[in-house]
Order: sequence, then structure tokens, then C-alpha cells
Amino acid sequence: MAEKITKQSDDFSRWYNDVIIQAELADYSPVRGCMVIRPNGFAIWEKMRDNLDRMIKETGHQNAYFPLFIPESFFAKEAEHVEGFSPECAVVTHGGGKKLEEPLIIRPTSETIIYSMYSKWINSYRDLPVLINQWANVVRWEMRTRLFLRTTEFLWQEGHTAHSTFEEAEEECLKMLDVYAEFAEKYMAIPVIKGQKSEKEKFAGALRTYSIESMMKDGKSVQSGTSHNLGQNFAKAFNVRYQTKNGEMEYVWQTSWGVSTRLIGALIMAHGDDKGLIIPPKLAPVQVVIIPIKAGEKTEINNIIDRIYNDIKGEVSVKIDDDTKSSPGWKFNQYELLGVPLRIEIGPKDIENKEVVFVRRDNKKKESIPLDNVKEKVKLVLDEIQDNILKKAREFREANTFYPDDYDQFKEIIENDGGFLMSHWCGSTKCEERNQEETKAVICNIPFDSDKEHGKCILCGEDSQKRVLFAKSY
Amino acid sequence: MAEKITKQSDDFSRWYNDVIIQAELADYSPVRGCMVIRPNGFAIWEKMRDNLDRMIKETGHQNAYFPLFIPESFFAKEAEHVEGFSPECAVVTHGGGKKLEEPLIIRPTSETIIYSMYSKWINSYRDLPVLINQWANVVRWEMRTRLFLRTTEFLWQEGHTAHSTFEEAEEECLKMLDVYAEFAEKYMAIPVIKGQKSEKEKFAGALRTYSIESMMKDGKSVQSGTSHNLGQNFAKAFNVRYQTKNGEMEYVWQTSWGVSTRLIGALIMAHGDDKGLIIPPKLAPVQVVIIPIKAGEKTEINNIIDRIYNDIKGEVSVKIDDDTKSSPGWKFNQYELLGVPLRIEIGPKDIENKEVVFVRRDNKKKESIPLDNVKEKVKLVLDEIQDNILKKAREFREANTFYPDDYDQFKEIIENDGGFLMSHWCGSTKCEERNQEETKAVICNIPFDSDKEHGKCILCGEDSQKRVLFAKSY
Repeated sequence: MAEKITKQSDDFSRWYNDVIIQAELADYSPVRGCMVIRPNGFAIWEKMRDNLDRMIKETGHQNAYFPLFIPESFFAKEAEHVEGFSPECAVVTHGGGKKLEEPLIIRPTSETIIYSMYSKWINSYRDLPVLINQWANVVRWEMRTRLFLRTTEFLWQEGHTAHSTFEEAEEECLKMLDVYAEFAEKYMAIPVIKGQKSEKEKFAGALRTYSIESMMKDGKSVQSGTSHNLGQNFAKAFNVRYQTKNGEMEYVWQTSWGVSTRLIGALIMAHGDDKGLIIPPKLAPVQVVIIPIKAGEKTEINNIIDRIYNDIKGEVSVKIDDDTKSSPGWKFNQYELLGVPLRIEIGPKDIENKEVVFVRRDNKKKESIPLDNVKEKVKLVLDEIQDNILKKAREFREANTFYPDDYDQFKEIIENDGGFLMSHWCGSTKCEERNQEETKAVICNIPFDSDKEHGKCILCGEDSQKRVLFAKSY
Repeated sequence: MAEKITKQSDDFSRWYNDVIIQAELADYSPVRGCMVIRPNGFAIWEKMRDNLDRMIKETGHQNAYFPLFIPESFFAKEAEHVEGFSPECAVVTHGGGKKLEEPLIIRPTSETIIYSMYSKWINSYRDLPVLINQWANVVRWEMRTRLFLRTTEFLWQEGHTAHSTFEEAEEECLKMLDVYAEFAEKYMAIPVIKGQKSEKEKFAGALRTYSIESMMKDGKSVQSGTSHNLGQNFAKAFNVRYQTKNGEMEYVWQTSWGVSTRLIGALIMAHGDDKGLIIPPKLAPVQVVIIPIKAGEKTEINNIIDRIYNDIKGEVSVKIDDDTKSSPGWKFNQYELLGVPLRIEIGPKDIENKEVVFVRRDNKKKESIPLDNVKEKVKLVLDEIQDNILKKAREFREANTFYPDDYDQFKEIIENDGGFLMSHWCGSTKCEERNQEETKAVICNIPFDSDKEHGKCILCGEDSQKRVLFAKSY
């Protein structure tokens, strides 16, 4: 930790970059818009990936791997899709020292290449549903990039399924949105708002797009996962058909859904504070760090530290830092920067009293724990921390959610407070665009649990049946 | 399983393709030279990756992720490297609708992009060693491709380390070769020959390259892992320097090492037979399949199957196939094709006798097991299968290793029997190339445990101190 971190209240965006660079989560690369995910950042991604991968498999999906390259002609087969993604494409024109006959697009998403295979693999209703997921890198040529949140290359998973009916596809699509929401709340400790994207914001080529939206500590939203009901759009473009029980040929109904390394950005901004990261225990590469307070009486302290370490290492991820070159104070700062959920301090006085000190990263509370209770207490405290981080995020979101019924009030809130604004909207793209232009807020989604309520569009005054979620969004 | 598999003795290469396609491990894609790894194949890769990843971490390495793209100018900084890889490069010339100022190479390997970062991260001896690994896709524009063995895009891991001395780098390099050898023998059940590559065959830019070589059932070799001592070649090209304890600036010493999805090809060809795959239990996505023999007396059979399933599912990966649409015979063939190590059959007669039948994939042996012993026996038998597959591979290799001392004899063996040929070689590239031209065999490596022995080069008759490993190689 070489430099000071900018305070959140001074410049949230700079705080974000400072934390990432100083905690060595990621670094800028010499390649335009591409970042390097350093070991500290990648260890968090591995935790996310492993847990989400398990959840994806538990819901019946299998992993596979499809080519990085997409022939340009394939890419162009679905009209909305190519229109949406073309401006962001990286194109390979030369291979093996020769100009290619047909340029290859580096996948910005894999619907087209995957569904060209599905059209080969799917013949009969017996082949359905197809439930496949892939973990991969994708490339989108972004104009303005931001570590984790928006990079030219990023890592993600993309699920691609095929079904025999619209209803089944819709069910799958919503099921995976639920999986994402559960993952966000249970593991990332981030409460999310599930809802449907507006026509303007839906995925290029989809019938409908659903998303989960989460609030950052600057009041902005991060779209943290999307699930698309693709209808038969791609099935028609790629001729993915199956023979029904009655012998008729029908197009399949498809879904796709994904989350990416931008979740790491969300994790940082949803929980971090002026000291650095706050990582929920379930995603923390190191959950507990043990730090001896004094170098004196080394043997006894070390014996006790080893005992604690051996006691708990089977149940939690624990690290001892007994490096004598750094002071305890320096270490405290360092592990706070890294967001390690629980610190155990142990000094000569503690040994006399047969206890250690627990210091929580989430609320900074210190507590003396009798040596004999450490093992049993560690798991309990980590669970408490996990719950508390979610609770705080929920309270923060509630405190920063507003319900303006009037456009002037809306603009004032967006300008001064930020946060989530639940307001009425007539459903027209015209009002959506006007709002975006004038306030820089977007319609994040149309929340599922926004109750039916008669109101007037804050922009045009037309009838509205529901409040929708407006916010500035990353 | 729609079609018949070509017999190994009729056409080994066709057998290989038949097995891959029919077991649905992989498929050809519409993109030149790129394959799709289907769920059955990817599940094997996941098992390989997870075990190897654990071993890489246990030896002190951390995972990270670096960009897919390498600026052309970086790529050109190490002279041998660019010369070796340029003919195989895929090049991005356009991004975001515009021609790029500098073309980007899609990584065929990541030394250059990674070491450009190391030059930023490494300053002092305190920063060393750097021990980083990455799991990634890479692209090499191959002329003739082959499922798993040689594809334009493939998946791999690449380790990249930096050290303060030559000795430490050399030790690391050999340590990782040992990790690969242990993985090959313990998990893949493939015995390997460790050794050093000839000057001609070493990695472009390395000081030395080490490899492990394994024998396939057609007697050819698959290079199954390489580890490179890069010396200071890349450190000099990328200015990766550190300050020593004495305050001097020195270049670091580096290594890189990797294995790829071609290991799946090796697994198939080292063990498979005319019925299909034989997967060692430690890498088998499904280790045990339970198949009821008769549909009659359904409840009782099903109850017993459920009991067995629940008994063993915590310890082994088990699947029940009680689908009534396929016959038991069809299922037997299907799971033999897929290489499932152990089949448990259970029919009305077995129920009367309170037993089940174990059928091993590796040696086809059937054995009746009392119902009460199933749980205890399953693990034992899987261990036996794992050991036996390795033993068979070892015996096969021994039976197909020859020690010709004369070039005519050498040529005769290569032509008629194939296999590994341990022969004397003078060390010159000229003889190496002549042999390759005339026999299509290559020098796979100079084995570590080939004893010192005075002899004459089989090609030129010059003095030789050691036999080296010649073979036809994939």
C-alpha cells in the first residue's frame, strides 16, 4: 500500500480506481481498453465462478466450449443482433500470414456460433431441452473503458438453451434470473431488483430481456446479470428446428443469459469504504488473517497462533502474517485494504489472559475471545459478517430510493442525491430517451415487484400502470 | 451411438475421430480449424483442469488473467520468438469499425504481454519470485488440424515465473515438469518420459525446453507438457529488472510451462479400445453407472438401485440409467463408448441372490457382489481400475520400446512396428533433420533417465553419450 486512497466522498470514481490498483486486483495493460486481472482480483473471480458454476450445474446445465471466432456471414444472419453489436466488433482479417477469404469476428457474445451448432445437433423433440453454459472471454470494442466495469475484453459465462415451447423458454429465462439474484444476495451480499428491460434497452435480437440491478455506494446502479428470452429469432436465422411428437418441424425457443467480471466492480462499489475493500466472507479468498502483535516472546505466541491456525484451517480460509519486516499497524491497514473479513490479533497481554482479539472488517468492532472459544466463534462471526454486509447494503438502498411523482422533483433528486428513483413512465421510447438526455438517468428495468398503481408518466403525463426503476447506471 | 466405430487395427486415425464424434466429446465447427468441445468432452477437461489447478496452487502459484491481444510491436521484441510464432498468428486489424493504428496479434502464447507487465511490477529482489499461472484460450493458425491434438484455437494453462537466479529458474522449470509427470501418471494413468528437447525442437525464445512424452496405442508419441527455462532472453527484451540486495540492477530469470486440451487427445489414444473410450476413474465425469436389467418387478429393483445410489453417491460420481426406451444391451454399449469405468447391473435374479454384478470397463471382467458389500467394494474396484489402466499403458510402452543400434534396423522398426526407439544420436541438427526427412520420426526428447552409455550416432556414426527418444509424434 504505497499511496493514500482518495476518499469516497471526495471522488467516488477515483476511490474506485485507487482501491483496485492499490489492492492489486487489476492493472491497466498496454492494450487499449484491456485490463490485467492480478492474482488478488482473480482469486475473487474464482470464488464467484466456482459458486455460480455449481448453481448453474445444479439447475441442470452442462458446460461446453465454442470457438472464439465467428464468421462474419454468421454474425449478420440475425438483423437486430448484427446492428446492435457491429459497432463493437474486433475483426481478424489475417491468419497464418495470409488475408482471410472471410473476416472473422471475435465473439462479443456467442449466440450465432453456438446456434449454428444447435441446428446440427437438434433434430427431434427428444433432443430438447438443450441446456449448455460456457465460461469464456469476449471482446467488445468499448469507447470509454473502466476497470472491471467496462473493458474491451472481459470474462463471463453465457448460458444458451433451446426448448420446445415459448413457455418453457420463458420459465428457463426467469429461473436463471432467480439464480443470479440468489447468487448476488447470498454470496455477493448485494440485494438486487429483478425486472424487465425496456424495448430500447433489451438485448439485440431478443424478444425480452430481464435484468438484476444493484445499487452502488454512490447511488448509481450496476446491471449485474441479464437473461434473455430470444423467442424464435435466432432459431429462424440459423434454422434450428426439431421434429415434434406428431412429426411436424418446428423452430425451437431459445434463451441466453450471462454475468461477467463486471460483478467484481459491483462487489467493490457496493461494500467498500475509505479503507478499501470489504469482501463478504463467502467470496473472500482469505477469510481470516492472524497477526501477532509483538515480536517478543515469539515462541509462545507462535505456538498459540499455530494452534489456532490448525484448529480452524479446515473450516475457513486463514492466513498467518508473522512477517517481522512490517509493523502490526501496517498490516492492519493492508488487510483492511484487501477486505479480509476478520482479523485475529494476539499479543503478550492476550496470552496472559488466555484470549485473542477479533476485529471485524465490516463494522470495525473489536471483541476479546477466550482462546478455547476461537474455533467455534470464527464460523459464527463470519456468518454474522456476511449477514451484516447484506443488511447494510439493503438499508443503504432503502435510504437512497425515492418515489418522485413530478419531473422537477425527479431532476432535483438525481442531481443532488442520486440513488434509485421509482417513478411513473408511460412506456414510450420517446420519454425514455428524453429523460436520459436531460438527466443522464436511464430506465434500469421495470421491476417485477413494483405493484400495479395508477399514475402519470413524469415526463409526458400520460397514463402509467407501474413505477419503473430510474437511476444513473454504470 | 448411431454408427459403428472403425476398428483400431483397421485405421487408428479414423477410430480416433469416430470415438470423439460418437461419444460427443467434440465436433467440427464452421470456423476453419476450430472445434467445439461438447459437454461430454468438457466434463473431462474440467476434471483435468481442477486437479492440475490444485497441484499448481499447492506448489505456490497463483492464477491471474492477461489480455487476449498482443500489440504487434511487443510480439516482435524477442527475435527467436517472433520468428517461431509469426507464421501461426491470427491478426486483428479492425476494431470498433475502424482500422487499428497497430495490428493486434491474438495470443499464441503470452510471454510477451505478461512480461511487459512484469517489467512494471518487479522492482526489487523482494518482489521475487513471481509465480503466476493463467488458464486461457490461445490461437495458432495450423495448416493441418486434428480434434483436440492440433486445433487453431485451444485451451490451456500457461505458467510464467520470474526468479533472481538461473538456478532457481531451472529448479522451478524442473519442478513443474515433475508436476506434469505426476499428473499424467496419477490422474491420466499415462506413464511419461521426461527429458530435454533438442535445440531444433525447443520453444522459440527459450534457453532450454523440457517435455514429457507419452505413448499412444498406435505407438506414436504425444508431447503432453512442456516446461521452458527462458533464461534472460525475455527479461532483456522487456527490460524486466530488479534491484538486488546490494543495490545493483539485474535482469530476472524466467520460466514458462503449459499443458493444453491436447491432453484429452492423449487420454483417448493411450487407453481407448474398439468399444470406445476408457477413462481412468480419477478423470471420469461419471465413474459408476447403474443399469437395471429388467423392467419387470420395477419397484423392488428401483428400491435397491436407489439404496445403492444413496449409499455411494457421496464418495463416487454415479448415475442411474433406468430409461425404459433403450434396452440394457444398448446402454451397455453406450457407456462403454463413453468409457465409464464401472457398470453395476442389477436384475431379478440378482435380487433373489441379494447381489449385483460389477462389470469393469478396463478388462471387461464381471463379478457378482453381495448387496451389502457394494459400498465398500466400489471404491476398491475404482482404485484397482485406475492402477490397472496405468499398468497396462506401462506394459504396452515397454513392449513397444526398441533399442536399435543401426539405421537400417531403425528404419525397419519405424516402418513396421512403430513405437519408441531409443537410439544413439550425435547431437547435430543435421542428423536430426535427415532422420526426420527419411523416416518421419522425430527426436521427442533426450530422456533424463537414459543412462550414460558410449555409442555411435545411428545416422552419422559419430560418438554419442546417450540414447535419445525417437518416435513418430502427433
